[in-house]
Amino acid sequence: MIVNYPFAFHCQSQIVKQKDGFEVLLYTSKKDEVKVAWLAYSHDNEEYLVPLESQDDSMQLSWRGWKGTVPYSQDSDLTLYYFQLNMPDNRYCVSGYGTTVAVPSRTHWFRLNKRFSPPEWPKQQVFYQIFPERFCNGNEAITPSPDTYPYHVTDEAVTNRSWGEAVPEGTNVYYGGDLIGIRKKLDYLIDLGVTAIYLNPIFSSPSNHKYDGVDYFSVDPAFGGDKALISLIKDLKKNNIKILLDAVLNHTSDQHPWFDRYGQNGACHNAQSEWRDFYTFDESGKEVCWNGCPTLVKLNHASMGVQNQIYAGQDSVLRYWLKAPFNIDGWRLDAIHMLGEGASAQNNHTYLKSFRRAIKDTKSDAYVLGEHTREATDWLQGNEEDGAINYYGFTNPVVEFFSGREDLDEKYRVQFGADYFSAILRQRRGMIPFQNQLNMVNQIEAHDAPRLLSMLEGDVKKAMSAATLQFTYIGIPCIYYGSEVGLEGGYDPDCRRCFPWEPKNWVHSLLTHYKALVQLRKEHEALQSGDFIELFTSEDVFVFARWLPTAHIIVGVTRGSTEVVSVDVDRLGSSASSYVCLLGGDEYCADENKLTLRVPEGRGVILAGNLSKR
Amino acid sequence: MIVNYPFAFHCQSQIVKQKDGFEVLLYTSKKDEVKVAWLAYSHDNEEYLVPLESQDDSMQLSWRGWKGTVPYSQDSDLTLYYFQLNMPDNRYCVSGYGTTVAVPSRTHWFRLNKRFSPPEWPKQQVFYQIFPERFCNGNEAITPSPDTYPYHVTDEAVTNRSWGEAVPEGTNVYYGGDLIGIRKKLDYLIDLGVTAIYLNPIFSSPSNHKYDGVDYFSVDPAFGGDKALISLIKDLKKNNIKILLDAVLNHTSDQHPWFDRYGQNGACHNAQSEWRDFYTFDESGKEVCWNGCPTLVKLNHASMGVQNQIYAGQDSVLRYWLKAPFNIDGWRLDAIHMLGEGASAQNNHTYLKSFRRAIKDTKSDAYVLGEHTREATDWLQGNEEDGAINYYGFTNPVVEFFSGREDLDEKYRVQFGADYFSAILRQRRGMIPFQNQLNMVNQIEAHDAPRLLSMLEGDVKKAMSAATLQFTYIGIPCIYYGSEVGLEGGYDPDCRRCFPWEPKNWVHSLLTHYKALVQLRKEHEALQSGDFIELFTSEDVFVFARWLPTAHIIVGVTRGSTEVVSVDVDRLGSSASSYVCLLGGDEYCADENKLTLRVPEGRGVILAGNLSKR
Repeated sequence: MIVNYPFAFHCQSQIVKQKDGFEVLLYTSKKDEVKVAWLAYSHDNEEYLVPLESQDDSMQLSWRGWKGTVPYSQDSDLTLYYFQLNMPDNRYCVSGYGTTVAVPSRTHWFRLNKRFSPPEWPKQQVFYQIFPERFCNGNEAITPSPDTYPYHVTDEAVTNRSWGEAVPEGTNVYYGGDLIGIRKKLDYLIDLGVTAIYLNPIFSSPSNHKYDGVDYFSVDPAFGGDKALISLIKDLKKNNIKILLDAVLNHTSDQHPWFDRYGQNGACHNAQSEWRDFYTFDESGKEVCWNGCPTLVKLNHASMGVQNQIYAGQDSVLRYWLKAPFNIDGWRLDAIHMLGEGASAQNNHTYLKSFRRAIKDTKSDAYVLGEHTREATDWLQGNEEDGAINYYGFTNPVVEFFSGREDLDEKYRVQFGADYFSAILRQRRGMIPFQNQLNMVNQIEAHDAPRLLSMLEGDVKKAMSAATLQFTYIGIPCIYYGSEVGLEGGYDPDCRRCFPWEPKNWVHSLLTHYKALVQLRKEHEALQSGDFIELFTSEDVFVFARWLPTAHIIVGVTRGSTEVVSVDVDRLGSSASSYVCLLGGDEYCADENKLTLRVPEGRGVILAGNLSKR
Repeated sequence: MIVNYPFAFHCQSQIVKQKDGFEVLLYTSKKDEVKVAWLAYSHDNEEYLVPLESQDDSMQLSWRGWKGTVPYSQDSDLTLYYFQLNMPDNRYCVSGYGTTVAVPSRTHWFRLNKRFSPPEWPKQQVFYQIFPERFCNGNEAITPSPDTYPYHVTDEAVTNRSWGEAVPEGTNVYYGGDLIGIRKKLDYLIDLGVTAIYLNPIFSSPSNHKYDGVDYFSVDPAFGGDKALISLIKDLKKNNIKILLDAVLNHTSDQHPWFDRYGQNGACHNAQSEWRDFYTFDESGKEVCWNGCPTLVKLNHASMGVQNQIYAGQDSVLRYWLKAPFNIDGWRLDAIHMLGEGASAQNNHTYLKSFRRAIKDTKSDAYVLGEHTREATDWLQGNEEDGAINYYGFTNPVVEFFSGREDLDEKYRVQFGADYFSAILRQRRGMIPFQNQLNMVNQIEAHDAPRLLSMLEGDVKKAMSAATLQFTYIGIPCIYYGSEVGLEGGYDPDCRRCFPWEPKNWVHSLLTHYKALVQLRKEHEALQSGDFIELFTSEDVFVFARWLPTAHIIVGVTRGSTEVVSVDVDRLGSSASSYVCLLGGDEYCADENKLTLRVPEGRGVILAGNLSKR
């Protein structure tokens, strides 16, 4: 019996950090019915209930406000709490899980970190993910060739393909994308409006994906080397575009000099090697690899040597690239949950905390972004990552909701309506602090799974709806290169196709829509920092608001055909006559407390509301 | 979209510990519809999916069985997993949360501890909780009197009341219950059939509740001293009755010699005292108390002295009473989640692990039972407590379901139907390993809150239904003294009334029912160790099964009037013609897959089914 937010919402965007605790606000819409309102918190594992204070003037809201202060925990940086309302008919608990009759599990209590918070800038950005080998070939002279490329993957010769040709299997297939190419396409990115890019790995490596590094301290020559990166970053900064790099700290290539499979100096064949303890060997002397893949050798983070190279030393990997002349703005940490001691992920959280410290010591506003294939909750409690690639809380449910499957294969159907979809999103974001929710990176697709448009069998309208959701949902939107022009792609490596630079191959309606969304996202603070309020669901339609005291945005998307729906906006406390349609059209009609909303297929509807007092 | 167990269930009672992992079994009822079945697990924080092997012969079941092995985690003693089924219409995930379309949060994955498991005996018991001061006065000569009682609570003189008189406020009010009294009433307990007792604190203390101890190493003289305990235990053992004592390790009385508020030797007034670091003093020199209560001074478990006294020393509290001549069978650990360093609960889990070690070192099959006013999940992952008083997962939802409120006060109504009730129970048990679920102590009432019968305004029928649930639910039933004869009581201290020894004051129908339930619980292994399978809910009725491969029990209870319901028993894979009504009556009618069940108000229905192959 989850009742969502029919009469209460906790505006987490308005939390104030005080000397002894966090001042929190709850709004209730049926003000005469709430008999008693409590704040429930825990600072020593015991649960305490204290009455909330009723507020007469609830800012610009017609609701009743309730205020309380959650004392900081004595035991940890994390402060946990929820609200309890006693109404004539029932008790209702308001937590990250939603509004429930049952007392929520601690897992779903609201949570705030008193000590750590993410930097301000990431949530204001629109990210763009580039798989460098496939974005643009800026210098054909440095494209790997069978003769000239210094690295090799055994049993696989370097092969070259022409730009745009179908992508075959193989990590040694090169089209020639490089950093010079990205720099050449800067005007395209500026025109699109994105404000930050994140690059898949660019450090020296014998593969096209470069998740198997041989040197953490050099950009691959096939991408243009350090020089190309410095030039690129110079131009990016000139245009106020931020950059994140991808750090692969769980494993190296087996050709890394530390391991040196084809030589005698590294750990592989030399038990006396200074790098022997960088890796883990079983009783038979066999090295531990990532997922059993022999070219990806797992680093042993218990090794002092590894610690010094990765984060502890003053010029360690995580610090080196944050400093001049590179000055990158943050790190995307690959497969970071798997990293640990020996063959295991033991003490993973200890290392993550150290990574964070090293990064923030070097650049206090650097962004720490984790990559986790599934649930990332444990790393997102404030003291480790600022945010994570939101596969669990966004990508997967969004792909499932819009496509009706988890995979290209028809066998893997997943069917649920918008109400369930809304609940999944709520429950998954509800386990992490609000500030970290705002700093999650919401991608619809990435380099490891089929692209959405292929999952949708080319249905552009559904892809547009998904994009509307991506740019208005809580968290930072990140476009995977080519999504905006309708690039398709199946399983890896097909999802790493070359960017189609011929505009005749673009889906222009999609690109126009993306450009509009990028602008809206940048212009409206409510989309960057606002609370998330669920307003309405039908089988196919999802309507919600992003809320700040000064402004709010109402969003409606559908995965089916156009629907006209009636939405109760009383809970937003807003004047119903002052909406502006931000995507064009004239989609609404409002009376006292009801908003009649046309949710068109495709782009959906986005309304900006002003909050005048009723 | 939780779909409960319509077509799949994981029989956790049949898990086999192998060399490299746990062998697990899943049954699916619609065997032709499951296209692919996966085991999902994590041993290094990454999620892995491996196909389950289909079993042709599923023991005595007509279902299809699926087998898999969950590798032990590399990182911890805890092994996490769930199942994923791909069916033509949808994907279903089976986890501790139930059967869902969404991938469950790790919080709800099934969990097994490879290293620690509870002893075998507790789940075979029926517990009886006694508040010693109110059970039976066996020796009036030792009842505290204003003149003779050695302890005192300031500002409160010892007062005496006659047995059965209304209970006034005050911790110095004595009726004279003692251990001699309990021993005298052993025949009553044997006749009732209980097999284990747990006593509220009995160590020397200046109050009637004795949660403020002044000596961990002596039984209070008003209860008969050590001698009375030894005699009582001797008689208990003779009758195969186990005993748990209540350890209050979070705080002592301010009159404890270590603190010594009214003398000069203890920590209170003497900064040089050898016990000064046993407690915590703020900057102004004021001691830290439990919940600000000045007579309950919080122990500082960071102190080596406290560690030695409580668990580390060979004759420390937790070891002392487990050894001869006392040989108690286990500990109930009071308010154990709050215990820690200084004013906080810091490093609480570290201490709990040490407590467990000390207890098991002394007596390997001792039972470690935690008391937590709310959610105890974090302490129940195998390596700390064997079980906990199940307020969160049983008492609170049961009281709310049957009474419709969380409190005596009408203002605090809580309304939900049996479907929601079933979901609350499922979600709360689903976060702990199955072996620990079996070892939770399910009480309907205890010494800190109003008794159920008072919450029910005397409705004996509902109290009977609740008792049926208590004795058939997963976990160990524990009767709070007097429940079985219909003792009522409001807020503390009214819930600590004297046991009414005059049979004319008993609700005999209730007592008869309790006796029957006690016998059933002892006779049927399925009730002690079986899986829990939800079968049916209506607004008021809840029907479920306790399942073992060799036998199962079907239970139906209602909080409303008698209902006849039709239950799909296909999922139990049993022959439908072989039920026995264990509470009398002839309540069922079965055809091929459907069981038509009469669920009478009051006692409800309990059926034993034999599993013959169809």
